[in-house]
Amino acid sequence: MIIDCHGHYTTAPKQHEGWRQQQIAAFDEKKAIPARPSISDDEIRDSIVNAQLKLQKERGTDLTIFSPRAAGMSHHLGDAETSAQWSRACNDLIHRVCALFPENFVGVCMLPQSTGVSPANCRAELERCVKELGFIGCNLNPDPSGGWWKDPPLTDRYWYPIYEKIVELDVPAMVHVSASCNPCFHGTGAHYINGDTSAFMQFITGDLFKDFPTLRFIIPHGGGAVPYHWGRYRGLAQDMKKPPLKDYLLKNVYFDTCVYHLPGIELLTRVIPVENILFASEMVGAVRGVDPETGHNYDDTKRYVDQLKIGAAEKQKIFEGNALKVFPRLAGALAKARK
Amino acid sequence: MIIDCHGHYTTAPKQHEGWRQQQIAAFDEKKAIPARPSISDDEIRDSIVNAQLKLQKERGTDLTIFSPRAAGMSHHLGDAETSAQWSRACNDLIHRVCALFPENFVGVCMLPQSTGVSPANCRAELERCVKELGFIGCNLNPDPSGGWWKDPPLTDRYWYPIYEKIVELDVPAMVHVSASCNPCFHGTGAHYINGDTSAFMQFITGDLFKDFPTLRFIIPHGGGAVPYHWGRYRGLAQDMKKPPLKDYLLKNVYFDTCVYHLPGIELLTRVIPVENILFASEMVGAVRGVDPETGHNYDDTKRYVDQLKIGAAEKQKIFEGNALKVFPRLAGALAKARK
Repeated sequence: MIIDCHGHYTTAPKQHEGWRQQQIAAFDEKKAIPARPSISDDEIRDSIVNAQLKLQKERGTDLTIFSPRAAGMSHHLGDAETSAQWSRACNDLIHRVCALFPENFVGVCMLPQSTGVSPANCRAELERCVKELGFIGCNLNPDPSGGWWKDPPLTDRYWYPIYEKIVELDVPAMVHVSASCNPCFHGTGAHYINGDTSAFMQFITGDLFKDFPTLRFIIPHGGGAVPYHWGRYRGLAQDMKKPPLKDYLLKNVYFDTCVYHLPGIELLTRVIPVENILFASEMVGAVRGVDPETGHNYDDTKRYVDQLKIGAAEKQKIFEGNALKVFPRLAGALAKARK
Repeated sequence: MIIDCHGHYTTAPKQHEGWRQQQIAAFDEKKAIPARPSISDDEIRDSIVNAQLKLQKERGTDLTIFSPRAAGMSHHLGDAETSAQWSRACNDLIHRVCALFPENFVGVCMLPQSTGVSPANCRAELERCVKELGFIGCNLNPDPSGGWWKDPPLTDRYWYPIYEKIVELDVPAMVHVSASCNPCFHGTGAHYINGDTSAFMQFITGDLFKDFPTLRFIIPHGGGAVPYHWGRYRGLAQDMKKPPLKDYLLKNVYFDTCVYHLPGIELLTRVIPVENILFASEMVGAVRGVDPETGHNYDDTKRYVDQLKIGAAEKQKIFEGNALKVFPRLAGALAKARK
């Protein structure tokens, strides 16, 4: 079984984003928020069948761990209540996709974050998504300010209330920024990758996993710059008198394979233990074109993993085994889907 | 000849940084700035002979293109006049190192940048360093605010006044951030790498080299995350209808080899044309330890390049040829040193 641990609902019916615009306009104008739009099952089916599901079939993957559009989370807009409403709308829609295609999609939620508002505020929505909607993880935005990085590092006690709930529910968190309002940071080309790199360096600097030994993070986009600079990170940790990174962080930190060329994926699997790598494509996502050097889509990352010169058991870990380990609720969700 | 294009004077005599502290204290207290300290030639010799020069000899490199300590630039402190005074002090000290060891060091200046102050303000100091002190390049900080990214992207016309002077003098600029005041960004582990990644994505997004076809940038630290995500960047450029990156940016953008493990350097030379790679170590710099996996210093990057399975002519480009091309004033500086 091939599990893609990082897919976003970038193709949601247009009235969903339309409502978001109305919501933000109403917030800005201090008016009442309109009711959420009606979206039919057929509209949801259409949005999936011709996009994510079609690509799953074409590329030979089986299941996508599916979350709301990352740039769309935009926690910098409105206030905490704005984010709460929008999170519920987005997560409910993910739930409907998963209910319609239970063998192809399992849900991961966005959280109702808001700059300067305690992440304790996200506990109820996470609990609702896991316990009521059957979700198996969450996306945690390390920069709810949208490119201005106004909140504390992820190792700060500021974040502990949500970590307590994450640990209690035994779900992992993918560290995933949202849209960038900072003109210096292109969204998918800079802010995303910088967010990944910064988070990992925060984990080196802090000592978070002493307090939360079972907390698990997935750093997407192949871990940002981290595997490419693995020597730098090993050396920085060493200069700080930290244990070797393998012992210090790799029981808690995982990387996905959203790296859009073979040499990058080869580097990833060469320096990071295969036990810490989860297959992912981020589709339909950041890069939509066909690579003229290969004749295949840049984001068809399965092709790169297929080409790796590693054993079948190692590939099985990347494609399936590690996901089942990092997302303990996944096995139950699959069993339920197959009933 | 082996030219290290990226070395910082991290070992300057302590009264130099001491004066900086006095300068900032005087600025904060609105008092008169004290006179610059006396530093003897012997003190400068001592600071170099047992550090950068010793490492050059041990590692078998010949010449370092040498600039002030990057984190020390701290353009966010004080105001434009503060940065002007400090830049003169730092650049003058680099000049004294180069005068004492003319065969081992050639100067690159820092610029008197200050958040929100036009880079036109840096033209005179750049001209002084190149024309009077014999410097061959400059370091340009894309984020003078120190981790808050308050100035426009490097492709904005805001930066054009300094580009005009850079082009007129025919010197390259290394894109190099300074210290981070943002607790989310560790300096050498996040802010440096993010700065590199962000700058490259700015160059993709803007169309700067149409206006400045001879402007040349070196992106240090192996280009941040860029080579690891080369597929992503090629794909993003393609989605934006830009030309292939090789044609679009690689006549103007170069990468150094400050990547502290062999797999990273192998990736770099696999995806980026050797014509665009300049040897560098960043020593004495970000990572000071010995890699237990190799028994050698992480930042002994010459060892990694030596181990590459590429031809001698290609290695010569990385070690020497490309530096002579990207820094046209280098040949003259070397000829003068050998007289």
